[in-house]
Amino acid sequence: MLSSNFSHIVFDSNKMRLLLLDQRYLPEKEDFFVCDSVENVIEALKTMVVRGAPAIGVTAGFACVLAVKELLSLPSTSWEKHLREQFSRIAHARPTAVNLQWAVSRMEQCLSKQTLLDPKELLQICLAEAKRMQEEDCQICRQIGRNGAALIHDHDTVLTHCNAGALATAGYGTALGVIRAAFEEGKRIHVIADETRPFLQGARLTAWELQRDGIPVTVACDNACALLMQQGRIQCVVVGADRIAANGDTANKIGTFGVALLAKHFQIPFFIAAPLSTIDRSLSSGSLIPIEERPSSEVISFGSRPVVPSGVPVFNFAFDVTPNALISGIITEKGVLRSPYTKTIQDAVTS
Amino acid sequence: MLSSNFSHIVFDSNKMRLLLLDQRYLPEKEDFFVCDSVENVIEALKTMVVRGAPAIGVTAGFACVLAVKELLSLPSTSWEKHLREQFSRIAHARPTAVNLQWAVSRMEQCLSKQTLLDPKELLQICLAEAKRMQEEDCQICRQIGRNGAALIHDHDTVLTHCNAGALATAGYGTALGVIRAAFEEGKRIHVIADETRPFLQGARLTAWELQRDGIPVTVACDNACALLMQQGRIQCVVVGADRIAANGDTANKIGTFGVALLAKHFQIPFFIAAPLSTIDRSLSSGSLIPIEERPSSEVISFGSRPVVPSGVPVFNFAFDVTPNALISGIITEKGVLRSPYTKTIQDAVTS
Repeated sequence: MLSSNFSHIVFDSNKMRLLLLDQRYLPEKEDFFVCDSVENVIEALKTMVVRGAPAIGVTAGFACVLAVKELLSLPSTSWEKHLREQFSRIAHARPTAVNLQWAVSRMEQCLSKQTLLDPKELLQICLAEAKRMQEEDCQICRQIGRNGAALIHDHDTVLTHCNAGALATAGYGTALGVIRAAFEEGKRIHVIADETRPFLQGARLTAWELQRDGIPVTVACDNACALLMQQGRIQCVVVGADRIAANGDTANKIGTFGVALLAKHFQIPFFIAAPLSTIDRSLSSGSLIPIEERPSSEVISFGSRPVVPSGVPVFNFAFDVTPNALISGIITEKGVLRSPYTKTIQDAVTS
Repeated sequence: MLSSNFSHIVFDSNKMRLLLLDQRYLPEKEDFFVCDSVENVIEALKTMVVRGAPAIGVTAGFACVLAVKELLSLPSTSWEKHLREQFSRIAHARPTAVNLQWAVSRMEQCLSKQTLLDPKELLQICLAEAKRMQEEDCQICRQIGRNGAALIHDHDTVLTHCNAGALATAGYGTALGVIRAAFEEGKRIHVIADETRPFLQGARLTAWELQRDGIPVTVACDNACALLMQQGRIQCVVVGADRIAANGDTANKIGTFGVALLAKHFQIPFFIAAPLSTIDRSLSSGSLIPIEERPSSEVISFGSRPVVPSGVPVFNFAFDVTPNALISGIITEKGVLRSPYTKTIQDAVTS
């Protein structure tokens, strides 16, 4: 059975440290970023060493393990305060994805069942829980893949935006999980990866991991989408999600909303693939989802080369929100949810 | 009176050579690419040292001058063949813009009135004609600016894609000519420049020339367009054109069609600004316009840094065609043409 043949979130239990494949340097270099402390993980999250909603959730779980490790060198009187502060920092390392809060809440729940007496024991309990979250995420992705594969037909070309792949999850991927599952079923498919400015997750990461798995992929600049659709080259769009509101409105990488509008115009089905943990039912609609603005440095230069004149400001919103009306279906581990989303989401989450 | 305060197509009459501001290296370096021969100019056109439909028309005019210069070192028996061959190469240096053919035809007409006896005299006649074309293009841009300025309102933010500015023309610009004219009228406007992958003409060139002229500009990645429109930040879109069919369908930089579809969705007026020489009435509709595919090297790396894994193919179409139904008006030197374009274009061209 085909699987993504690499690991990118690895906890080294001997040295009690987290190793993250540094996605900033793919496809040029395959280096690991070493995290010995919560501080390191927060830097990794903020600078996008690791990104993708499920992947940063799993990473946050291991960050909580490191927070517990830090107790070993602190007086027991400060343990509770330290954990509270570090967990809060982890939960807010990036603003848009709900997975950070979700992971931290789960580790808090796990800890709340324990007494804060022996940090070494706590450490093992937390580590087991973080590994469970990682394994569960892989299982969920495979289930999303199985549920979505039926939506992809033999000979389809599938457009995806950004990277909702193995690198954005614990492994296998959400949008790319659907693509992998269709490919494993023997469907002859082709993927078009939007390059996804400014961080180029599509060109660098999606193309890298699909190539590794032998799935045919072509890269296109984001602005080629309308032409490629007009030329009849795209039969289906599948993307991931960073946060989904109770009504199905979906925050995902900047540009997703534009792709969805174009898909609607060309009557091409547009699917979201995401675990139920991405759904934030505390938000009734997408307009309540906070949109992260990232540093202009991501846009104004490329390597050492300036591409925007010095002093010219830039917009660098990291996400946009696709209204539910543009979404043909939300592929989850509990099946493909269809409109009306408020009802189908509620049913899926509470069933 | 504000004007673009730089020259980017300069003919050095002493050394009989053409100097082109090398747009590949802006905003980092302001170097001139020196053309002593037709060969040099063709390289400059193909590699986008100079780009933009009117600018390459003017450049083609000077390339014809260099073709005539080359006669000086050839036997008179080969003159006619040499000119025919070189003019044809110039006309086909790039496939989408009609301006190359237009400029070459005009130089041919100019020459056809002469007898091929004294190449030195011919040279002066051709040079005068090329300079006239350059000056006329500046005048036309100013007239396009005056005609379009009324469409821009005080406090508008105007989105533009690619660079249809002074750098894309002999000076002043078409889309940016409209923006310059509105600014000169005292309107408090702001420009959003799409960065325009893969060549980044918006980030590098549009931002550079507007900054030089003191016109407020912000750069955004191409895929931010839908979000920025949804946020109400954009009141109007003005772009240039590489070729316009008889029915108003317009070929322009890849991504323009997508912007036009999004503008339609958000009910934002979408204007083309272009001289009548951009219109190719031999093509009844945009589907007949050839779309240039450019080398993948423009997409797969950035400077020395690879951004697409080795071996992964890319799409790199340079243009797309915006259907006339999405165009609110075509701003020309003879006024703003409105739908039905087949009639208004015919009237403008033949009046």
